[in-house]
Amino acid sequence: MIVTLLTDYGHGDEFVGVCHGVVRTIAPEVPIVDVTHGIPRHGIRAGALALRNALPYLPAGVHVAVVDPQVGTERRAVALRCGDGRLLVGPDNGVLSLAWDWAGGVQEAVDVSRSQHRLEPVSATFHGRDVFAPVAAHLAIGSPLAEAGDPLDPRELVALDLPAPTVEDGTATAHVLVVDRFGNAALNLGHRDLLGVGATIGARVVIATGGRSREATVVQTFADVPSGELLLYEDAWGSLALAVNRGDAAAELGLAPDREVRIARAP
Amino acid sequence: MIVTLLTDYGHGDEFVGVCHGVVRTIAPEVPIVDVTHGIPRHGIRAGALALRNALPYLPAGVHVAVVDPQVGTERRAVALRCGDGRLLVGPDNGVLSLAWDWAGGVQEAVDVSRSQHRLEPVSATFHGRDVFAPVAAHLAIGSPLAEAGDPLDPRELVALDLPAPTVEDGTATAHVLVVDRFGNAALNLGHRDLLGVGATIGARVVIATGGRSREATVVQTFADVPSGELLLYEDAWGSLALAVNRGDAAAELGLAPDREVRIARAP
Amino acid sequence: MIVTLLTDYGHGDEFVGVCHGVVRTIAPEVPIVDVTHGIPRHGIRAGALALRNALPYLPAGVHVAVVDPQVGTERRAVALRCGDGRLLVGPDNGVLSLAWDWAGGVQEAVDVSRSQHRLEPVSATFHGRDVFAPVAAHLAIGSPLAEAGDPLDPRELVALDLPAPTVEDGTATAHVLVVDRFGNAALNLGHRDLLGVGATIGARVVIATGGRSREATVVQTFADVPSGELLLYEDAWGSLALAVNRGDAAAELGLAPDREVRIARAP
Repeated sequence: MIVTLLTDYGHGDEFVGVCHGVVRTIAPEVPIVDVTHGIPRHGIRAGALALRNALPYLPAGVHVAVVDPQVGTERRAVALRCGDGRLLVGPDNGVLSLAWDWAGGVQEAVDVSRSQHRLEPVSATFHGRDVFAPVAAHLAIGSPLAEAGDPLDPRELVALDLPAPTVEDGTATAHVLVVDRFGNAALNLGHRDLLGVGATIGARVVIATGGRSREATVVQTFADVPSGELLLYEDAWGSLALAVNRGDAAAELGLAPDREVRIARAP
Repeated sequence: MIVTLLTDYGHGDEFVGVCHGVVRTIAPEVPIVDVTHGIPRHGIRAGALALRNALPYLPAGVHVAVVDPQVGTERRAVALRCGDGRLLVGPDNGVLSLAWDWAGGVQEAVDVSRSQHRLEPVSATFHGRDVFAPVAAHLAIGSPLAEAGDPLDPRELVALDLPAPTVEDGTATAHVLVVDRFGNAALNLGHRDLLGVGATIGARVVIATGGRSREATVVQTFADVPSGELLLYEDAWGSLALAVNRGDAAAELGLAPDREVRIARAP
Repeated sequence: MIVTLLTDYGHGDEFVGVCHGVVRTIAPEVPIVDVTHGIPRHGIRAGALALRNALPYLPAGVHVAVVDPQVGTERRAVALRCGDGRLLVGPDNGVLSLAWDWAGGVQEAVDVSRSQHRLEPVSATFHGRDVFAPVAAHLAIGSPLAEAGDPLDPRELVALDLPAPTVEDGTATAHVLVVDRFGNAALNLGHRDLLGVGATIGARVVIATGGRSREATVVQTFADVPSGELLLYEDAWGSLALAVNRGDAAAELGLAPDREVRIARAP
């Protein structure tokens, strides 16, 4: 079984390489895919979204996500089996919850905080190395989930709370979910929500956020508007997103996760 | 056959990991080499140069390059076989052309925009995932090129237009091709061009760019000049390049791709 | 045998991908682990520490470290066998020395500057590609160390000189070894040294550096203090380190490698 890794460790030091080393030591033949290690530090929601977005394109395996501001405290470390058979491993802080929602819910969960697979002595700050990587590696080579930790009622697992959009009186009120490196900002809206605003492909809409308003065009892709113009498009994961063709929408509009964005048809 | 990936996706999100997941799903045994994902956004020329520079050191395989500002428009997506047997996959915007020049030209090309291998529904903005990765994976496991898309006359492919240097009256007029992370700036000049300037190893030359002039020494490596001094050297790919020993030539001289640089012997 | 790579090349260009390509061309079946390529440019000590920290978690193999400010000069390029059987490859500037200290010392060393395995022509600036990667690949597939270069007396190898801490009159005088991406600063102190200061878990200490003093709490992990507070903890590698919970200690205290830090019990 494949192991995939997603963290906020970055590539500036040896943290990711060490996790690879731990997996390879226990499971030399298991392929490892780095989903990303560029999650913003402590960005639990960004990590949860990235894992959920990636999962449909990853071979079924053991999927590790470590975004873990509470490392070394009493927060639980967990491993779980989803309805579709995938295994998830990480801290119990919500970073896994969008993934298990997509993967058929949780069928079985264990608390791996004191797993027999962990590396002793367990450090207080690097559970990616000492707990999550070795647990994942043992699962990947076929060790049963039940032997990775203590049984846990799946209903006790921490789920992420995402903001909910509203559409009222022709105005959609949404929030920024995540901003990518190009400054494109995904909203918690789907294309269907736009129908409530009366906007389809080609429509002009008003984007109000942070006390300012600006017009955008609803299009399919960046190059459908001139350079420097604001667009609203369905991104590759099915979310509506704001972008500036060859520009940086987040910088221009001051967008960041959780920022409220209101959308209505232009007059 | 190996698959290599080069993009401008960066490592900040899950884009690269998703492409790996797509390849591994279709071709679980195929090794993947990340040439780089750090090409500047939309840097078609930087991507083309990086691929050309890397190719001689990569095992022959399916080489994907995705720098794709026109993604989602009518620009073609292509796969092609070079004279030396290597396969190239990417948007038809020139990012592949320096590679095929090096690899013996194009023997066969197909338009993969509507390839049977693509993932449906194809998004408007992430053809790395939906078109290029799956096409490359199918080619890597032996699926014939002709079945990856519609036949295309190789002469219709878009080739990159690089600036040409001139050497006249003892002055070489060149342009910056690419700047690396250390601020070293590669020029579209080879060592031979320096002969026209009358400069060999050890010579002092005047570097004029952006309205300013500065002297540099022609040397073999950084440490041949004191810290902080400007040098002109043949870089690891055979281009003449400007650098500052333990410094940042691009920052000091304001160098960026396409910037004109004139070189003459110091008086 | 596995090959591991650690460099200061970064991910902004094709340098790392090319090294992978060279290894794969010579040794197609050998797994490659990237320890990190994010060592600060020319950060010999940071590279040496990262390799030493990672080594205990990596399968035994050929471990390459390239942080090489003197590339292209007469500095030696070396390959060596440690007491525990691991092989190390890199420039002879100290970047390997903490690793061999950990791995049982050097049993056999060769100068690979003119190795039969190198790629001709050897560039003056990219020995990762032309010397270290091909030497490592040949070693990984079983080529004897003695055939990789000219014999070298291990006592001639360059070792890193780390600052030594002192504990006197209840004050520990230490130096910053390395700062991670979160701004956590590892000191050349272990937990035992704190005993000389009379400080155990829960104690308040005064941290004096750069002409300023600030109190910190000795704790096990970040979340043991409120957000924004300074803490002193044992990091995942056994060093005492300064951090700010959900903050950046290096930025707040002006910490950088070699900066002196004095620690005493708070009054």
